[in-house]
Amino acid sequence: MKDIQNLQDDRRISIRKVGVKTISYPVTVLDREKKLQHTVATVNMYVNLPHRFKGTHMSRFVEILNKFHGEFNLRNFYLILQEMKEKLDAEAAHLEIHFPYFMERSAVGCSGNFGTERYECRMHGSLQECNDLVMEVEVPITLPQSMGRWGYARVSVRFKEFLWIEELISLVQQGIRAGAELSASVESLCGQLGDTLKATSAISWFRVEVENLADGCSTFATVESSTSFQYF
Amino acid sequence: MKDIQNLQDDRRISIRKVGVKTISYPVTVLDREKKLQHTVATVNMYVNLPHRFKGTHMSRFVEILNKFHGEFNLRNFYLILQEMKEKLDAEAAHLEIHFPYFMERSAVGCSGNFGTERYECRMHGSLQECNDLVMEVEVPITLPQSMGRWGYARVSVRFKEFLWIEELISLVQQGIRAGAELSASVESLCGQLGDTLKATSAISWFRVEVENLADGCSTFATVESSTSFQYF
Amino acid sequence: MKDIQNLQDDRRISIRKVGVKTISYPVTVLDREKKLQHTVATVNMYVNLPHRFKGTHMSRFVEILNKFHGEFNLRNFYLILQEMKEKLDAEAAHLEIHFPYFMERSAVGCSGNFGTERYECRMHGSLQECNDLVMEVEVPITLPQSMGRWGYARVSVRFKEFLWIEELISLVQQGIRAGAELSASVESLCGQLGDTLKATSAISWFRVEVENLADGCSTFATVESSTSFQYF
Amino acid sequence: MKDIQNLQDDRRISIRKVGVKTISYPVTVLDREKKLQHTVATVNMYVNLPHRFKGTHMSRFVEILNKFHGEFNLRNFYLILQEMKEKLDAEAAHLEIHFPYFMERSAVGCSGNFGTERYECRMHGSLQECNDLVMEVEVPITLPQSMGRWGYARVSVRFKEFLWIEELISLVQQGIRAGAELSASVESLCGQLGDTLKATSAISWFRVEVENLADGCSTFATVESSTSFQYF
Repeated sequence: MKDIQNLQDDRRISIRKVGVKTISYPVTVLDREKKLQHTVATVNMYVNLPHRFKGTHMSRFVEILNKFHGEFNLRNFYLILQEMKEKLDAEAAHLEIHFPYFMERSAVGCSGNFGTERYECRMHGSLQECNDLVMEVEVPITLPQSMGRWGYARVSVRFKEFLWIEELISLVQQGIRAGAELSASVESLCGQLGDTLKATSAISWFRVEVENLADGCSTFATVESSTSFQYF
Repeated sequence: MKDIQNLQDDRRISIRKVGVKTISYPVTVLDREKKLQHTVATVNMYVNLPHRFKGTHMSRFVEILNKFHGEFNLRNFYLILQEMKEKLDAEAAHLEIHFPYFMERSAVGCSGNFGTERYECRMHGSLQECNDLVMEVEVPITLPQSMGRWGYARVSVRFKEFLWIEELISLVQQGIRAGAELSASVESLCGQLGDTLKATSAISWFRVEVENLADGCSTFATVESSTSFQYF
Repeated sequence: MKDIQNLQDDRRISIRKVGVKTISYPVTVLDREKKLQHTVATVNMYVNLPHRFKGTHMSRFVEILNKFHGEFNLRNFYLILQEMKEKLDAEAAHLEIHFPYFMERSAVGCSGNFGTERYECRMHGSLQECNDLVMEVEVPITLPQSMGRWGYARVSVRFKEFLWIEELISLVQQGIRAGAELSASVESLCGQLGDTLKATSAISWFRVEVENLADGCSTFATVESSTSFQYF
Repeated sequence: MKDIQNLQDDRRISIRKVGVKTISYPVTVLDREKKLQHTVATVNMYVNLPHRFKGTHMSRFVEILNKFHGEFNLRNFYLILQEMKEKLDAEAAHLEIHFPYFMERSAVGCSGNFGTERYECRMHGSLQECNDLVMEVEVPITLPQSMGRWGYARVSVRFKEFLWIEELISLVQQGIRAGAELSASVESLCGQLGDTLKATSAISWFRVEVENLADGCSTFATVESSTSFQYF
């Protein structure tokens, strides 16, 4: 029989997060070819607090963001998190940015050989005792025979060593090509992508989702490596 | 110094999920006034598998869904999860539905006294050894003096006893009114909502997010109760 | 040399529209199989006014909408427009509804033979001296060999005689099949759809857009018949 | 009694458009402060054709776009349209771009005094015998007393003389402030915006929509000047 008193204790409020979300912001990110790429990001910034928070401090989040003039690279990412943690006297700080990243495309699409391809990218960083960063890219899948949009591969990774966004995207595209040779199923592409990322020493953790856009509903498969957090 | 061999082990592929997502589907849900409410849901169904999955079984997900003719209530939710787990020989089954729920509104808006208000609702159920269900509602916040859309309260709960969607929404609206009397800030509304849900014995766990739509970016606060999973 | 005085005249304010938009509303629409289908619509209602408008009358729009209990058929559509025109003493009344319509699917997708397909539908009616109604359906295109979502056909029509939504959708699917046999290009599908609709005596006017979802961008083609408005 | 033969004629296919749509593309636009602003645009390019179109030419659209390296200003806009018309041997060429434009904000929001505000901008150009360009900006409305997002003003204009995006936005903000002093209604703001734009000699045509985000539905009002097309 359930102990209500104990449940009451269970339901005590224990976690507080406050911050700003969906700030649209012009940013620059690292580009292997052009050194810097200009794009537009959506930014979320929030902190874990042990105690009630003074709303009057909300503006500090964006003051910190502006101080870095929208330049996002691994170093700035860490510095922003540190400043959030200090300035807001927080247990943990979180910074999430989401932006389209553009690359010259090799595939011959409607845009001929001169086109650019858009990749949705996300960087989710947090700083508590240690720093954690997850990078995510969404790579459209268009199979030679598919004459349309077959689907998407969404890959999230943690790094042991720095990887360019371009390197991560090209790893994903390799895995897709390899998987498609076996069979164009979410299972086969997902398994192959898992094997490809597993064999990449710079990557300490990954999660893969492959989605096939079909009539009325999408089918999907995911794999994830079982590593614990990797700090750097 | 890190043991690479060990990291290789860490990176072994350990989790597999497969399923269908974003199926748009006409459904009926329980309505305290009208017994049943017709609405349109977006449905995700997926399972955890210990082994490689035969893609040819994908159609089983929707066959199971169709068997229940889009009738969603707590009992059917559990039966669908059970059938998914069995038919697909899975470690765990997951069913997520997301639908707009309509209620007569009391507030005098542009729609006069006769209008209906739309509330985004989500039910996320999973069945492993035990059954777990999280219900979520999004309640728009319009303060008397705000002359516009002030923001949203997003409340997720686990139940100890059955609650109507109407009861959960009205609990949230009580908390908003109470919090707004103190001060119209995300912290004050969030804290008050937390206290309101904490005092509701039918609720074993909750998470609250209050968002204020402001210029250029939104501010938000969240609280969560610290209970462990409640099974029923 | 330009006559500024005359331009000033040109720039006099001459058109006023007021109304309510993006009302989410549970509705019923005609279904050939089930007589009625329950779905959720987004509704826009507005009127043209010769003079300044009293904002206090905004609630009348939704009062009129509620009076018809969300039952939408050709007759009610006309009655709602008439009541808007009278009650708001307007030169013209406009009613736009947009809803997903669900049909049993024949195609074997991930949902097997038992699935339902979702079609976006729009009805745009206006009443000035005469009544005008445009019906629009969006039909997903999935070619046998495409293994994904090839694209969409968006077809808008005016009627000379009543057509069920099911009949319009199946006309579009016929046109797609016929066009795909020639070549799977936006031009070939668009041309074939135009010929199919042109040969349908119940249709007095049509516009067709065929879109192919390709890498990075979509290609599209449109055709439109040159008829003037058809009143009924 | 209707003349069917004549209706058959009416339904002859008379208009053809082909092109590419929703190309996401990094662009630069003119910025009064910083000379150039980097942003990300969504681009549609299409042409009217008197005859059947060879799909193989689709890639030309993006080849033309790439030739201008995503630099958009009034002069390039016209040159791109000219090249589309020639290269594709078209009756008319159409270029639509839609991008977020960022400006330092003066209002003290959650982002303090250092924030940036995002404005949705659209430029729709077409070239037939003459050149036509419509510029559109969406300006968020946040009234001092509204403590949230009151709504939006969407203003489309044709120019007699060049106006910076900054100038157009500040004209709209003037009109909003002036209208809000009278009363915070869609009617009052819309009327005041109309008067403000009408008094601006650089503007030859305008359309204004003011939307108030209210519970469950939005109310809106529009005004439009009655000028005929202004070519430049």
